[in-house]
Amino acid sequence: MDMHDLTRQLHTKNDAKIVMLVADGLGGLPMTTGGKTELETANSPNLDQLAARGVQGGSIPVAPGISPGSGPGHLGLFGYDPLKYQIGRGALEATGIGFELQTGDVAIRCNFCTLDADGNISDRRAGRIPSEQSAPLAIKLREVTIPGIEIFVEPVKEHRFVVVFRTEGLGGNVRDTDPQATGVPPLDPVAIDQASQRTADIAREFLKQARTLLADQPKANFHTMRGFAEKPNLPGYEEVYGLRAAAIAVYPMYKGLARLVGMKIVGQAQTLDEQVDTLTQSWNDFDFFFLHFKYTDSTGEDGDFDAKVARIEDLDAAIPSIMALNPTVMIVTGDHSTPSFLRSHSWHSVPTLLASDCCRPDGLTEFTESSCIGGGLGQFKAKHLMTLALANAGRLGKYGA
Amino acid sequence: MDMHDLTRQLHTKNDAKIVMLVADGLGGLPMTTGGKTELETANSPNLDQLAARGVQGGSIPVAPGISPGSGPGHLGLFGYDPLKYQIGRGALEATGIGFELQTGDVAIRCNFCTLDADGNISDRRAGRIPSEQSAPLAIKLREVTIPGIEIFVEPVKEHRFVVVFRTEGLGGNVRDTDPQATGVPPLDPVAIDQASQRTADIAREFLKQARTLLADQPKANFHTMRGFAEKPNLPGYEEVYGLRAAAIAVYPMYKGLARLVGMKIVGQAQTLDEQVDTLTQSWNDFDFFFLHFKYTDSTGEDGDFDAKVARIEDLDAAIPSIMALNPTVMIVTGDHSTPSFLRSHSWHSVPTLLASDCCRPDGLTEFTESSCIGGGLGQFKAKHLMTLALANAGRLGKYGA
Repeated sequence: MDMHDLTRQLHTKNDAKIVMLVADGLGGLPMTTGGKTELETANSPNLDQLAARGVQGGSIPVAPGISPGSGPGHLGLFGYDPLKYQIGRGALEATGIGFELQTGDVAIRCNFCTLDADGNISDRRAGRIPSEQSAPLAIKLREVTIPGIEIFVEPVKEHRFVVVFRTEGLGGNVRDTDPQATGVPPLDPVAIDQASQRTADIAREFLKQARTLLADQPKANFHTMRGFAEKPNLPGYEEVYGLRAAAIAVYPMYKGLARLVGMKIVGQAQTLDEQVDTLTQSWNDFDFFFLHFKYTDSTGEDGDFDAKVARIEDLDAAIPSIMALNPTVMIVTGDHSTPSFLRSHSWHSVPTLLASDCCRPDGLTEFTESSCIGGGLGQFKAKHLMTLALANAGRLGKYGA
Repeated sequence: MDMHDLTRQLHTKNDAKIVMLVADGLGGLPMTTGGKTELETANSPNLDQLAARGVQGGSIPVAPGISPGSGPGHLGLFGYDPLKYQIGRGALEATGIGFELQTGDVAIRCNFCTLDADGNISDRRAGRIPSEQSAPLAIKLREVTIPGIEIFVEPVKEHRFVVVFRTEGLGGNVRDTDPQATGVPPLDPVAIDQASQRTADIAREFLKQARTLLADQPKANFHTMRGFAEKPNLPGYEEVYGLRAAAIAVYPMYKGLARLVGMKIVGQAQTLDEQVDTLTQSWNDFDFFFLHFKYTDSTGEDGDFDAKVARIEDLDAAIPSIMALNPTVMIVTGDHSTPSFLRSHSWHSVPTLLASDCCRPDGLTEFTESSCIGGGLGQFKAKHLMTLALANAGRLGKYGA
């Protein structure tokens, strides 16, 4: 049985509030043998106090050894098996810039490229054309018209942009047109299944018009299309968990991921303090709150150990204001580890802390990677966190008699 | 591969004896922050002595966050994935009163109800009619006769009774006749699939005759039918594990669950001492013994922390007599947690201890929820306990060359 079939059956309603504070890339590593991680180095008295009344464990985002991107990392935390539910690259790119995909849409990642006089690709990224030059070109492509099709063209960054087709009956299985090589012409968009034939036809027409529109450009005189993807079909929080869920995030990617599972995006916070203000203001309107804190990941990716420590201390400082709201269940976790030592997402389990009046405390008084090893939650897959949250909130009935 | 396909291939025979002592609802919680659980409070020197030579862990009955009923809780311990194997409500009710379901039987939970002069339900439970009034009415319904069908009617408690139909070709997918509301007539039994059409027809005829037989009753002048269910099709212990298995339980529910997996019910013990006597007497006739101890659950459900502590101490006192038989593998566990603090079954992992000459001891010298966190078995799904038991008994061969 699928876990969501189970939660659909078992979920109940009450006044409990669940807060899931996701510190992106929270888990870390020591920079030297015998050293401490970022979280172990940080002065975090409020997280430690929470640890004393909570239960800890190490969350495995996807499976041991697998380093996830933001998509699978968050899907796991949201209770969606990231090996079952996949967000196609085009859909993730659209989501990442805040584009609201609708069911049936097909989203495509596009790269401006340079064609030589023979029509062969001489640069697959159009010389990494800067955003201020590429954005107007993406906007220009909005002049493409195909009868019966709603078309969206959205600039992303440098040579990248997103195209979305909206109409009935579009499949997302179309091959990339990027040949992954120079000196050869771009490929034709080819449908992999019957249901995607129309998508391929539309893409072909789009490319034809784009070639004309871009013909005079010195660098970006054409573009490729990659990662064709339908909007992923994710059952929503209300349906599977019975939760009115709010997302309080600064960056479009995380708002987008939350929107895909039916969370409502609230507020326009730009800082953690503003996020906590938004949380406070919307406290009575929702049962579940996803708070996303980006900077533990970005500092880790920069390899800036000290900056990541400082960001963890910022996070710690926000804990009292959240706890003042008296959430029934308070969770602090991350979507994956981003050790400064590796300057990248990693596979290491993510320190995770759950506090409620009916969790079984594990006697730990610090929240760190080392503590988590001996935590009462053990090493668990991230996808199980939501059922634990619901159970601790008293929102899951008994399975079987 | 299904784990039972594996155990079918790998199991071997020897003289080893396995005892699985199930303290129902064993796991607990502290009543106050920083306090101890029931098991941590209990004086249990014998369990602690067993811990010193054994290995511990936390058993997750179904999945993190899922609180199981007795059915799924025991199926897990018996090695049957409780998300794969489900026992329908009617079958569980019949099992719970000790009725021996046969393959093909359909069991139905029935409630006496009160109809008003217009045939609408005025009370869905016939005023919770006491057992001494309802039992004779259930017996009276044995007068219903339908050609070619063997019919069993068994009183349960207050307004509840069980009906079992026995004949060829009965499916169990029939809708409840209880409209879950008053002021409306009972519903007709409607088959959900073709295979259950005959069951629905028989149920309709049963209800027709019952209406006549009960017509004169002041309160219980009709009844509803709910939870139609076939006998679940569970492969037996002998077949999947090569074990001659005995169940020594006081309450019918647990005997029934054991019977469903092919255990033989031995003795008529009413106390733990008598259960140990039965164990001793039947020691040479079986390879596996399931001993069920109810009172750690019932005291937990009463919210009576001190009584649960006392019952754990009773259990502890029985350990030396069991160990005197020198079981090859001794397991102490529970089917779920029942913290007095919650007064209900819960999702928390269950303290589990396995002792054998070839387990890998984990250096722990107390058997408690806190110890289990650091136990050598880690946090594991209950359904894996039986293969661990077989392995420690030397009854599982090598997988692959």
